[in-house]
Amino acid sequence: MTVGFPDVPAPDSRAAAAARRRQDLLVKPTGALGRLEDLSVWVAGCQGRCPPEQFERVRVVVFAGDHGVAAAGVSAYPAEVTAQMVAAIESGGAGINVLAALAGATVRVVDMSVGRPSGNIAVQDALSAGDAAAALERGVQVADEEADAGADLLIAGDMGIGNTTAATTLIAALTGTEPVVLIGRGTGVDDAGWARKTAAVRDALFRARGRTGDPLALLACCGGADLAAMAGFVAQAAVRRTPVLLDGLVITAAAMAADRMAPGARAWWRAGHRSPEPAHRVALAELGLDPILDLGLRLGEGTGAALALPVLRAAVATLASMATFDDAGVSGGPELT
Amino acid sequence: MTVGFPDVPAPDSRAAAAARRRQDLLVKPTGALGRLEDLSVWVAGCQGRCPPEQFERVRVVVFAGDHGVAAAGVSAYPAEVTAQMVAAIESGGAGINVLAALAGATVRVVDMSVGRPSGNIAVQDALSAGDAAAALERGVQVADEEADAGADLLIAGDMGIGNTTAATTLIAALTGTEPVVLIGRGTGVDDAGWARKTAAVRDALFRARGRTGDPLALLACCGGADLAAMAGFVAQAAVRRTPVLLDGLVITAAAMAADRMAPGARAWWRAGHRSPEPAHRVALAELGLDPILDLGLRLGEGTGAALALPVLRAAVATLASMATFDDAGVSGGPELT
Repeated sequence: MTVGFPDVPAPDSRAAAAARRRQDLLVKPTGALGRLEDLSVWVAGCQGRCPPEQFERVRVVVFAGDHGVAAAGVSAYPAEVTAQMVAAIESGGAGINVLAALAGATVRVVDMSVGRPSGNIAVQDALSAGDAAAALERGVQVADEEADAGADLLIAGDMGIGNTTAATTLIAALTGTEPVVLIGRGTGVDDAGWARKTAAVRDALFRARGRTGDPLALLACCGGADLAAMAGFVAQAAVRRTPVLLDGLVITAAAMAADRMAPGARAWWRAGHRSPEPAHRVALAELGLDPILDLGLRLGEGTGAALALPVLRAAVATLASMATFDDAGVSGGPELT
Repeated sequence: MTVGFPDVPAPDSRAAAAARRRQDLLVKPTGALGRLEDLSVWVAGCQGRCPPEQFERVRVVVFAGDHGVAAAGVSAYPAEVTAQMVAAIESGGAGINVLAALAGATVRVVDMSVGRPSGNIAVQDALSAGDAAAALERGVQVADEEADAGADLLIAGDMGIGNTTAATTLIAALTGTEPVVLIGRGTGVDDAGWARKTAAVRDALFRARGRTGDPLALLACCGGADLAAMAGFVAQAAVRRTPVLLDGLVITAAAMAADRMAPGARAWWRAGHRSPEPAHRVALAELGLDPILDLGLRLGEGTGAALALPVLRAAVATLASMATFDDAGVSGGPELT
């Protein structure tokens, strides 16, 4: 399969440099805002202006899909929970609804394969080549729709029983890591379930031999329609110069594939929250991303990223609104150091 | 000196238990909200009701004071910066103003000794016994004023050149820890400044011998008017059943002294942010507190706690507003586990 992403632009290095200089003028010791300073520089680069403007249209897109591998007993929950949780999100009562509303974001669900599971990756490909390309394209289309509607920050979330099994397989395949060190408890599977999950990942990885160099083929082999769409979404967001806050394990697995299809896309992403899933750590290291928060959430839906959104807003607000040493008449600004 | 705090009430264990039970009914896997679950239980206990109500009047109180030890060259900034930064906070341009406004909190500065420095603790007591008791009482009074005005959450912040030297000395004295493992760079002191700071802490500790069992005497010996007021403030907040988000090193040092004067007060506190200062880790461990955020801030003013406020709001909002399994018609609620 060939994938045709245009070249990914780099964030604006002049705006980023201006942001770094402006940080040193603000009425605080050099570097005293810690991570907020780096985040503000990143936002300035993505927006191409310094100071950056506060986000006004933040959109959470939850990609939902069922996975045939759920039948292998890899999850603590039955497959029908995917559809029920999609309904809960659409009726406004899920975790992501509450956290997005609190942080000033809206939520959209994209149903990729709810009730029409992708193939059981332990024994067969998740998708045909054509279906994988179509799912990727759907993600691209959603990113375009959101960018065209004026989104200034995107959050990608996931919902799907069995999706951490697929995500972990992708990470194992893309990084050459032994499954046993990657596999966690997902939503809370027990020991026997963990063993079934590990066996499923091993079987899927065995089937993936020879396809690890082709990200879309790999998404077809051991991903799923939702993961392919997420990959298209985060890659196209970068093409459209729209920054993305990644959520947890599943999105990050898709993002790894996306960065290989659209090299440089990772420059437009930051990681919102560190999942307790061991595979997440490996994927983040591969992408060079250090999560903003580490609060032990393992819910998905985009909740970890939504929870990090106020920190990103704080980075923008401090750079844009704090007084400078000159404004404030405070001694010890950068001219003294 | 004797200190007369009334007995500190315990948070309401029935409301906390109800919150824990309610978490298990929400439409998510058990424990999937991670730290948010524990924080929501804490807030429910403090408020004595489940679900808890969202905070409506959050107040940041910045205790400002000058320290004679600044003359010993322990800081990267000259002593006059304290007054200048107080003016910056009062005019709304400091980091805490921006972060508090973003998180829905207001800011008050309490001037304890700006321009009238506490004694240089390397060579003399910071305060007389009477002045220390008066400063403690001032902190109590401020907590009472804020509680009477309806504050439902308090954030304690600090501003004062030299205050990390005093705070580190208190932590060394209260925990019996060698200064060299506690002392960091404050707002960015260089190697020679670090050596001067370490020498000042050693000298102050030497003077503190025999007084480490009396928290108020210790605040007089090697704290300062601002630190004594902070201690009174966080202790009295607990007496008044008002939860507190602690900020960084300086507040946490005062809180250690407060918890010894008003045993059990720590149950009303959570730590907002982990300071890079090594002494903070020691003080937090002593208080059994695990910070919500770790973002490398070293600004003080209450900024780390203000940045954690949205996470605490998220904890309240999820417990109060998420649907239950029953509401949402989702399979796999607690009756299945």
